[in-house]
Amino acid sequence: MPKTGFVVTAHPGDFVWRAGGAIALHAKRGWRVKILCLSFGERGESQFAWKDPNATLESVKAARKAEAEAAAAVLGAEIEFMDAGDYPLVTTPAMMDRAIDLFRELNPAWVLTHSLNDPYNLDHPEATRFAQAARIVAQAMGHKPGPGYSYAAPPVFLFEPHQPEQCNFQPNVILNIDDAWETKRRAFECLPAQKHLWAYYERVALNRGMQGGRNSGKAMVYGEAYQRLFPMIMDELA
Amino acid sequence: MPKTGFVVTAHPGDFVWRAGGAIALHAKRGWRVKILCLSFGERGESQFAWKDPNATLESVKAARKAEAEAAAAVLGAEIEFMDAGDYPLVTTPAMMDRAIDLFRELNPAWVLTHSLNDPYNLDHPEATRFAQAARIVAQAMGHKPGPGYSYAAPPVFLFEPHQPEQCNFQPNVILNIDDAWETKRRAFECLPAQKHLWAYYERVALNRGMQGGRNSGKAMVYGEAYQRLFPMIMDELA
Amino acid sequence: MPKTGFVVTAHPGDFVWRAGGAIALHAKRGWRVKILCLSFGERGESQFAWKDPNATLESVKAARKAEAEAAAAVLGAEIEFMDAGDYPLVTTPAMMDRAIDLFRELNPAWVLTHSLNDPYNLDHPEATRFAQAARIVAQAMGHKPGPGYSYAAPPVFLFEPHQPEQCNFQPNVILNIDDAWETKRRAFECLPAQKHLWAYYERVALNRGMQGGRNSGKAMVYGEAYQRLFPMIMDELA
Amino acid sequence: MPKTGFVVTAHPGDFVWRAGGAIALHAKRGWRVKILCLSFGERGESQFAWKDPNATLESVKAARKAEAEAAAAVLGAEIEFMDAGDYPLVTTPAMMDRAIDLFRELNPAWVLTHSLNDPYNLDHPEATRFAQAARIVAQAMGHKPGPGYSYAAPPVFLFEPHQPEQCNFQPNVILNIDDAWETKRRAFECLPAQKHLWAYYERVALNRGMQGGRNSGKAMVYGEAYQRLFPMIMDELA
Amino acid sequence: MPKTGFVVTAHPGDFVWRAGGAIALHAKRGWRVKILCLSFGERGESQFAWKDPNATLESVKAARKAEAEAAAAVLGAEIEFMDAGDYPLVTTPAMMDRAIDLFRELNPAWVLTHSLNDPYNLDHPEATRFAQAARIVAQAMGHKPGPGYSYAAPPVFLFEPHQPEQCNFQPNVILNIDDAWETKRRAFECLPAQKHLWAYYERVALNRGMQGGRNSGKAMVYGEAYQRLFPMIMDELA
Amino acid sequence: MPKTGFVVTAHPGDFVWRAGGAIALHAKRGWRVKILCLSFGERGESQFAWKDPNATLESVKAARKAEAEAAAAVLGAEIEFMDAGDYPLVTTPAMMDRAIDLFRELNPAWVLTHSLNDPYNLDHPEATRFAQAARIVAQAMGHKPGPGYSYAAPPVFLFEPHQPEQCNFQPNVILNIDDAWETKRRAFECLPAQKHLWAYYERVALNRGMQGGRNSGKAMVYGEAYQRLFPMIMDELA
Repeated sequence: MPKTGFVVTAHPGDFVWRAGGAIALHAKRGWRVKILCLSFGERGESQFAWKDPNATLESVKAARKAEAEAAAAVLGAEIEFMDAGDYPLVTTPAMMDRAIDLFRELNPAWVLTHSLNDPYNLDHPEATRFAQAARIVAQAMGHKPGPGYSYAAPPVFLFEPHQPEQCNFQPNVILNIDDAWETKRRAFECLPAQKHLWAYYERVALNRGMQGGRNSGKAMVYGEAYQRLFPMIMDELA
Repeated sequence: MPKTGFVVTAHPGDFVWRAGGAIALHAKRGWRVKILCLSFGERGESQFAWKDPNATLESVKAARKAEAEAAAAVLGAEIEFMDAGDYPLVTTPAMMDRAIDLFRELNPAWVLTHSLNDPYNLDHPEATRFAQAARIVAQAMGHKPGPGYSYAAPPVFLFEPHQPEQCNFQPNVILNIDDAWETKRRAFECLPAQKHLWAYYERVALNRGMQGGRNSGKAMVYGEAYQRLFPMIMDELA
Repeated sequence: MPKTGFVVTAHPGDFVWRAGGAIALHAKRGWRVKILCLSFGERGESQFAWKDPNATLESVKAARKAEAEAAAAVLGAEIEFMDAGDYPLVTTPAMMDRAIDLFRELNPAWVLTHSLNDPYNLDHPEATRFAQAARIVAQAMGHKPGPGYSYAAPPVFLFEPHQPEQCNFQPNVILNIDDAWETKRRAFECLPAQKHLWAYYERVALNRGMQGGRNSGKAMVYGEAYQRLFPMIMDELA
Repeated sequence: MPKTGFVVTAHPGDFVWRAGGAIALHAKRGWRVKILCLSFGERGESQFAWKDPNATLESVKAARKAEAEAAAAVLGAEIEFMDAGDYPLVTTPAMMDRAIDLFRELNPAWVLTHSLNDPYNLDHPEATRFAQAARIVAQAMGHKPGPGYSYAAPPVFLFEPHQPEQCNFQPNVILNIDDAWETKRRAFECLPAQKHLWAYYERVALNRGMQGGRNSGKAMVYGEAYQRLFPMIMDELA
Repeated sequence: MPKTGFVVTAHPGDFVWRAGGAIALHAKRGWRVKILCLSFGERGESQFAWKDPNATLESVKAARKAEAEAAAAVLGAEIEFMDAGDYPLVTTPAMMDRAIDLFRELNPAWVLTHSLNDPYNLDHPEATRFAQAARIVAQAMGHKPGPGYSYAAPPVFLFEPHQPEQCNFQPNVILNIDDAWETKRRAFECLPAQKHLWAYYERVALNRGMQGGRNSGKAMVYGEAYQRLFPMIMDELA
Repeated sequence: MPKTGFVVTAHPGDFVWRAGGAIALHAKRGWRVKILCLSFGERGESQFAWKDPNATLESVKAARKAEAEAAAAVLGAEIEFMDAGDYPLVTTPAMMDRAIDLFRELNPAWVLTHSLNDPYNLDHPEATRFAQAARIVAQAMGHKPGPGYSYAAPPVFLFEPHQPEQCNFQPNVILNIDDAWETKRRAFECLPAQKHLWAYYERVALNRGMQGGRNSGKAMVYGEAYQRLFPMIMDELA
């Protein structure tokens, strides 16, 4: 059985810019990686699409969904949408129920989600809150009691927000994504309307890569920064 | 060539209570572990010894040195003393020079030292400052320039102070020391005058162990908590 | 077209004590300033009124509304109420919709609201959350799409709570309100039942004024402290 | 009239492990202590009970209620349940109304509740939020106006969570519970299914006790750590 | 034997503005209170004196010493000076030795000193560091070993700096100084050159007093805010 | 009289990478900008130079001095060196005296220096401490008393360290350096041995520029981030 990873994002772009390297890297190594994308970013993250006077909520959602599916395919991951709306993102008990089921079904080795704070975008911490709640409730034996699941709440890694310091983001992990960079970069191309961000996030990857090299003493080129929330249990210090 | 670990402590007890598990664990696996003990704790950590009216600074230092050497031997580590004094701990440029040499000679895979703050004991953060300074200067090619050393500044792990929350200690690593507990416990016995702390630090180890089990979902009994200071560079998330 | 300022408060007293100087100062210079007052403070900020055994929720609300209108008039600002209730303050989607419209209509140069935390009064951070959410959603082109608005999310200034340190309030701006002090002081008189606070907030203004003088090296008498939330973009350092 | 204390917890175990000493100590001295237990911990804190394939939500709730009542009786306290559910805990306006009435009726000298954060268990900070909101609204004269109550918002003490540093728990009070330890320990026995926690929380009490002795210079054996939220008003420094 | 209190300040004004109420209050109740004033504030806190073209370092020191002695007398406290200089304050081992002796001789029930940080005045945190170091070393039995002292490291209270939020000052104690206000106010008059601060610190006292009333529910007029550094050990919660 | 700016750095590269835009921008507008460079970075920031087996401390210092002078000239600033050494940076009272004189002579409108913390390089916070101490002592009328200087302690801006989040760097100002970018970029070329950093800091400037555009709603390309330490006194909110 392959190991699994789980990614919970508010909008489609987030999993590409912020976690595309981790997704592609683990997928390439045979992991099953599943993305739960809570909204299509249809209202607040689709400024380009609304310039078309004929745009409707449905047309924008469909277009963004297609892009996200294409990007997930490039990265090698499954994707599921919740259509929770954006600006604001509003989840329902049924969505929570589904997310809990997913945690139990996947029993993931890690879950990736947004930073704890983001004063620029309240959908992001709301997605984090949702992911954390589902991760915890999945532990409760009294939730859908019955035989047959083995679930341990996985470590949580928060991916890098657009303006890290304003979000109190404290990166304590830098993932070397050299082996996955080309794939991540190709996933950018599934989001043609946000072309101005391609170069931005390439620069982020290069600078995190150089920081990674400095911290480890081992050369690397591209990095993704993460904040690990819970203590890491180790058998040997490293 | 075995890997090496480096431990910098203010007083003898510190490496036993706080890092004895890590030392014994790695030594058992063939690592070379070296302890740099900056003082003998002769003035402020030897209350018992001073109850003897014939005690002198030299007699107390000699007794505490013997204890520390015995404990290091039990743990399987080398030990070197600097005799920097305690209450307060005052280091000299010559001591710094020696510490830099040690970093270069050992080229350790990690360095363990005290927390960044400790309002109960100013020798502790002073030892941390000293260790950090030596670790950094060892990188400078203009310090004793010449051919022949390969040194990369190692990750720094801060061990647990007596009252963690008062010291802003943020444990982000719990080391499973089940394989080393018996050895650590035997090292306690080299410090007979602090017998009241034996049970205290056994309780700390058991409670950190239970926390480790909760965070990982894998049973363990004894743990040591550490705060890793710099980002960890990873090739895969875990 | 005059510039505009926008003030979002939980209760009537708040805009007088905490932001009256900023409101009067900008109004005096020809700005359009609009206050959105989410409740009348009828349950929790009207202890005096409830001493009258004939008081009803409606009579208290009417009285406090009249006071707030009078104070806004003295300060030179427009005021709009939402009747969201207090203790607790509970906003509805319709209120949010109106607040978003206001952000777009005003396109303000700044928005003033409460601190992020206030353990003494949960209505205050709730008002802040509401203001921040409306400010962000107003940016979403998919919210009421169509031609014709120009909106840029304005800088947010948090005004001073009653007990700043308990609220983690970090003042990084002191506004010189010398030119507006007399007006602010006159607005106090619209709130006769809270006379004990007149002197309190005069002292706050004088002490913030002296701090302002110390920080700038330029004499000033009366100040209002603010916490600017987002980075300030500058063309020259000052 | 005896003084009163008020304890608001999310689940039954919490008041035993975290505040059992304070409850028993004050009860022993003649205080009226009331516990408001928001849920039965039936879904997420009853793993043992769900191992029985015949378990139902009602049977688990009944069993845990009986245990909690027994523990409260041992400690000498009254207990009231709200049946708000757990994993997640969801309170209603009617529950809030009742909690406000309780604050006014008891006019407690203190209220004990959970830490502000707990990334392992979202029911805990939700209980804290609920307790704080009720404590504040009880002050509003416009809430159920009328003659006849004397209420002053009491000091809030947060009790120790399972993993203090991960919850940003800052203990600034250690309560000497030597006189109540035997009672607290007996209350543990009302929770036979969580026997693995008996020893854990005995170790916590012993270690907090030793810390208490170090901070005061006066010997004590068992302690409970608390974080006092609001400034303490003193007539003399101590 | 009366209880004793110990106050360590960088400059003369500090003990008057920031701790004059505590000093007078305890002195009035029969405590022995001793002030250790590390410098005369002769270079950086005597702007007025240096306006006299004939001023010399010695004349300024003498004048400020006389003022400080007068103020201490009004407050009912002993005073001792160290002449450590100001701007910057530089202490010597001999000064530290004397401060340690004083801690042992006084065995105080509390020590008052400056905040941990003050970006406006580096002498203040230096005085705090000095006081903390002496307080700790006084515990070391190996420092001047011998029979005959009973010393327990006392609780530390930090008094309020000029700009509390900039100094990360977190007041968790408000002392009711109503009984000592007149005395404190009279001590102000010993510092005639800083008359502009008389009103400032009267406003601080009134506002802290109103905050004290709000936090306790008991009326008070004048307050002094303190940050207690170490956990308070309690026999009953209050 | 032109306005003046003052820059205090530990090593030559720092003023180029971190503050080159601010220096060039203000110089271009006619300001006098002076750089105080505390060391030549000869031991720890000259790895390339030490690869030459004939390198000596003097030859490395001379080479780095020439580079720094060239870079300052390109930026349009004066430069003065202190030769305080690096790894570690150790300043003397004579250096402090000179720095104080410079603050008084320049009476700058701002001072730029390093972040408050930098766990990778202890010279950086040491330079900050030195700059802050000199800035404060320059205010003391008793320091070199006499007629004739007008000095007000200027606002302090901390420039961006290499790994901002690890240094607790909180950027609250982004300076638009579009008008100075070409000059800053040309100054990079004076540091040919650190060519790998040219691209790194160009990426930093571009990403801070995009953040600046997002925060202000006004397009800009290149930015430099700063942390303003003290409150800004404003006559109008902006």
